[in-house]
Amino acid sequence: MLYFVGLGLSSKDISLKALDVLKRADRIYVDNYTSLFMNSDFKVVLSEYVDQAKVSFVDREFLEGEDYRRILKEAALRDIVIAVIGDPFIATTHIFIRIEAEKAGIPTKVIHAPSILSAGISATGLQAYKFGKSATIVFPEEEFFSTYPYEVLYDNLLRGLHTFFFLDIKVERSRLMRVEDALKLLLRMEEFENKGIIDLGALGIGLGRIGSDNE
Amino acid sequence: MLYFVGLGLSSKDISLKALDVLKRADRIYVDNYTSLFMNSDFKVVLSEYVDQAKVSFVDREFLEGEDYRRILKEAALRDIVIAVIGDPFIATTHIFIRIEAEKAGIPTKVIHAPSILSAGISATGLQAYKFGKSATIVFPEEEFFSTYPYEVLYDNLLRGLHTFFFLDIKVERSRLMRVEDALKLLLRMEEFENKGIIDLGALGIGLGRIGSDNE
Repeated sequence: MLYFVGLGLSSKDISLKALDVLKRADRIYVDNYTSLFMNSDFKVVLSEYVDQAKVSFVDREFLEGEDYRRILKEAALRDIVIAVIGDPFIATTHIFIRIEAEKAGIPTKVIHAPSILSAGISATGLQAYKFGKSATIVFPEEEFFSTYPYEVLYDNLLRGLHTFFFLDIKVERSRLMRVEDALKLLLRMEEFENKGIIDLGALGIGLGRIGSDNE
Repeated sequence: MLYFVGLGLSSKDISLKALDVLKRADRIYVDNYTSLFMNSDFKVVLSEYVDQAKVSFVDREFLEGEDYRRILKEAALRDIVIAVIGDPFIATTHIFIRIEAEKAGIPTKVIHAPSILSAGISATGLQAYKFGKSATIVFPEEEFFSTYPYEVLYDNLLRGLHTFFFLDIKVERSRLMRVEDALKLLLRMEEFENKGIIDLGALGIGLGRIGSDNE
């Protein structure tokens, strides 16, 4: 069996159900690249409940490269966990591994957990119904500056909908986008596109450390 | 302190953090009307960890009526929990109580949990980014049949976006809308609006019992 276990947004978000699965599993691969902030906390909580010898923290290359074949081979014989921060299938690419597992006849199971998508919307206090399409604001690359988030915002504003922006993270380079960085990028997009939808008086809500004690 | 604790989608979705708060709280009001299916399971899990004498299961009238004043009075002096299935602020009206508490100078805290919004999107395997506005398909009343969900679907389809439909629940009448009921209603909306977006060959994904063992 191949389990996809969501760990939630802070180390104590682990659910009773997730804990059951983690305790019983033969091997646990922890996605170590979707988030930065909680790795150390999370290691402490895991070590309290789970035999450390069976836990591997793995990087993007491992989970998005050819190593998934190794995981499938193991999961055909034993109980293997891929553990992911947040809910396992929000904004991650692990769905590919699930599809390959199901194709190979290996049963899979998902343990849900708080995701930034619902927890973030919940934390704003706004109606979930009134959110349109979401988008990620990414760090500009040297040769590339996308105004895509601006277009999504424009389209949602026309419809009277809120927009949820995810902020980029580059775990390999230990870079996390801050709210002020994202705002600066949005203002720069406004300069390019010039539709007059963002100025310094625009109302936005910045969210940080959602799910942590100083949310 | 007033805590809003998410219980998740099945009884074992309770997190370590939620359990800490529930154990320490002086009184726990459980929202008993947002969902039907898990109340009995949930009572069993709660009774394992929490002193039953301090737990009250309350109905919509209690949490949406004037009793919030009583809750605020208690929360000014002691640790009070409002426990809700799913994440506390997705599609519920408890945000009102939080705002009143903050106005009265009573500190509040949210414990996030899996919500049908993110768990449902996750369970489809589709990209969370590609969902537009969501809507609820409600049971038609005698004199009232709304085609609002159809309009939302139409608008999202025009823009190449998926639509997430919540299905109605009437806990007081023990009625849960099934996927086939929702599909019938969508086909009826098509008859009214006649934009040719839904026919028996349309692709949809029906989700049920998300978060439970037979998801």
